Amino acid sequence: MKVLLIFAHPESRSLNGALRDVAIKELEAQGHEVRVSDLYADGWKSEVDRADFPTLAPDARLIPVAASKKSFEADALTKDVKAEIEKLLWADTLILQFPLWWFSMPAILKGWVDRVFAYGFAYGVGEHSDQRWGDRYGEGTLAGKRAMLIVTAGGWEEHYATRGVNGAIDDLLFPINHGILYYPGYDVLPPFVAYSVDRLDETGFAPIAARLRERMRTLATTPPIPYRRQNGGDYLIPSMQLRPELADPGATGFGLHLNGTGASG
Amino acid sequence: MKVLLIFAHPESRSLNGALRDVAIKELEAQGHEVRVSDLYADGWKSEVDRADFPTLAPDARLIPVAASKKSFEADALTKDVKAEIEKLLWADTLILQFPLWWFSMPAILKGWVDRVFAYGFAYGVGEHSDQRWGDRYGEGTLAGKRAMLIVTAGGWEEHYATRGVNGAIDDLLFPINHGILYYPGYDVLPPFVAYSVDRLDETGFAPIAARLRERMRTLATTPPIPYRRQNGGDYLIPSMQLRPELADPGATGFGLHLNGTGASG
Repeated sequence: MKVLLIFAHPESRSLNGALRDVAIKELEAQGHEVRVSDLYADGWKSEVDRADFPTLAPDARLIPVAASKKSFEADALTKDVKAEIEKLLWADTLILQFPLWWFSMPAILKGWVDRVFAYGFAYGVGEHSDQRWGDRYGEGTLAGKRAMLIVTAGGWEEHYATRGVNGAIDDLLFPINHGILYYPGYDVLPPFVAYSVDRLDETGFAPIAARLRERMRTLATTPPIPYRRQNGGDYLIPSMQLRPELADPGATGFGLHLNGTGASG
Repeated sequence: MKVLLIFAHPESRSLNGALRDVAIKELEAQGHEVRVSDLYADGWKSEVDRADFPTLAPDARLIPVAASKKSFEADALTKDVKAEIEKLLWADTLILQFPLWWFSMPAILKGWVDRVFAYGFAYGVGEHSDQRWGDRYGEGTLAGKRAMLIVTAGGWEEHYATRGVNGAIDDLLFPINHGILYYPGYDVLPPFVAYSVDRLDETGFAPIAARLRERMRTLATTPPIPYRRQNGGDYLIPSMQLRPELADPGATGFGLHLNGTGASG
């Protein structure tokens, strides 16, 4: 396989740096090709702004969606963004690795998504009809590829459990797993999460590294999160509401969007 | 009241820019004082990196949590971050305004949170005992103040409904409302969200502006989202799990963390 790992931590001599090296070593030992985008080391620019659209007239109003569409169509995106798109097309599997800061990804990684996931590439793809609402949520440019997160969290695992005060980790990561990765077509694997990392010593590192190695060995075979396909018949078009018969009327929560669960509550 | 509005859109001549002006005008008409941090206009730096901690030795390993703690204690954070902290302490009410990009905030605003919400200020506050697990989730430095989001979304409102394919808007915003705003103590008001904004014309703008004006007029009186208090007795300490009697054993979803709901499903 060809694996692209996006690394978003400012310090190589960190737990994240050590886990990245563990992952790469194991992947290469399995015969996979690995490429890494080290966002901090590369000086990645985080903000979507006018500089992203060199063909936009200086006095024109910047409408990010329209500018993204036009620039992608005209192959006029900036060099750094085009290089990342090329890597995404090259890779069979995408890994996003980051420390959980304020229950989401660091700004630099959000900026990678905001800038690289262009209109016509990661969204705004496919036709709309009464059978389909574009190619998204299981379909799209990146369909057939796999993606997963490697996340470190300072908090306790219990605090991220189903009834934990922070909210369940799978729900906290839903906007990323479903909204950023599944949207353009990836099959999304369950995330790898290491908890209580602020209190970690050498003894604590070994089992985490072992668990990560195992996930890297099973990257091709781990079943993805069973999100429902948008155009698979489960949602009404165009309201994109889950069909009434597929879950209890009072059911709420992201669990609604998993195949075969019926309900979340 | 004193209101701080954090504005995170790259174009002033945008719907977001127009809504910001509507909000400010209405707030001032009500006699409130308003300050604005316009992140793009100010050239806000999005990435947490070594430059944020001027007292960190050049060869020292950067541990963001530790560096943040040390710098906040020593009043050694950078000037831009200190200015934002001062504004947060000044304001009674905080408004974060942004376009929803990939189901979350733009990178530049995440970078404002990552950098300004320092250890000792927004987290790492309070003592731990069997009665309390620090001051967070309803307690903390910013307790007694109000916060709310003003969000624009390209997608349809139906797609963000309870059974909509994107996931429910309140769940998508939970990591921000609960994880970023409630965590350091804010009372969080229900968000203001404008949908289908990519297809908006002048006729469509008027009712959205009217709805926003109404929200600005009721900023001081709108009941906040009834999140449970961490140290209010609803969670076991130190596991921080919701007490068994407070919701059905099989219940899941962020609804668990609302007072008086019992369950989400």
